[in-house]
Amino acid sequence: MEKEVKYTTWVENATGIQGTARSLDGELQVQVSSPLKPVAGTNPEQLVGLALATCLNATIEAEEKRRGYDHQSVVRVKSEMGPDTPGYQFWVTAYVKIPQVDRQTAQAILKKAEQRCPMAKLLGANPNVTIKLVDEFEEV
Amino acid sequence: MEKEVKYTTWVENATGIQGTARSLDGELQVQVSSPLKPVAGTNPEQLVGLALATCLNATIEAEEKRRGYDHQSVVRVKSEMGPDTPGYQFWVTAYVKIPQVDRQTAQAILKKAEQRCPMAKLLGANPNVTIKLVDEFEEV
Repeated sequence: MEKEVKYTTWVENATGIQGTARSLDGELQVQVSSPLKPVAGTNPEQLVGLALATCLNATIEAEEKRRGYDHQSVVRVKSEMGPDTPGYQFWVTAYVKIPQVDRQTAQAILKKAEQRCPMAKLLGANPNVTIKLVDEFEEV
Repeated sequence: MEKEVKYTTWVENATGIQGTARSLDGELQVQVSSPLKPVAGTNPEQLVGLALATCLNATIEAEEKRRGYDHQSVVRVKSEMGPDTPGYQFWVTAYVKIPQVDRQTAQAILKKAEQRCPMAKLLGANPNVTIKLVDEFEEV
């Protein structure tokens, strides 16, 4: 299909690993820091995790409402970082709870959401990315 | 290679498209909203863009320093959203400026960074994702 853009936004990092990064419209401004140093700040692991959690949960929410359910779903994402050859790699695991429906319905809602959610599609082909339905989140 | 995790972090979205989303350690907390509605807040487009901008620029910074240059690189990311069949899709384009070196050196630094940067690797296989070296950013 032809590319049809409904929304465009710009973000920028000039600082590198330590300092402030932001969207040009001012809606997102964060302190970033190395996750391996005891310095306050967020990092790419959290940012990409929250992009997936928000996008997938928003898509599930739309599907809950389409089916006449209240929105009760929660998406929790674990982002991990470790060595790669060369450099580093991330592992991203999304845990999805849709507690107000039976497991079969929850699976159907999640499947539909994965097919529609742009973040799931952007990451989904990568073997380091997993999305799974759970009844309860594991202890953090 | 065997999976060796150096850092683990958790984030969560319970609200859906509108409300507060956060990391469980409290380092990242944002208001999210639909980019198609006139409501303040950030969104997955900006979050994934800033994850890529920060991770790639941090990796370029390390390579600048390894080569004895000051850190001057800037990564600006354009995130776009539009219809897909089904649902929606994102397009993510990273524009990279490494102004203190000649173009050939800048290309070599960027190539090295792309091979090492976990966000570039997480997204890089996707045809909707592009990373390019530029002399100047386009007008926004």
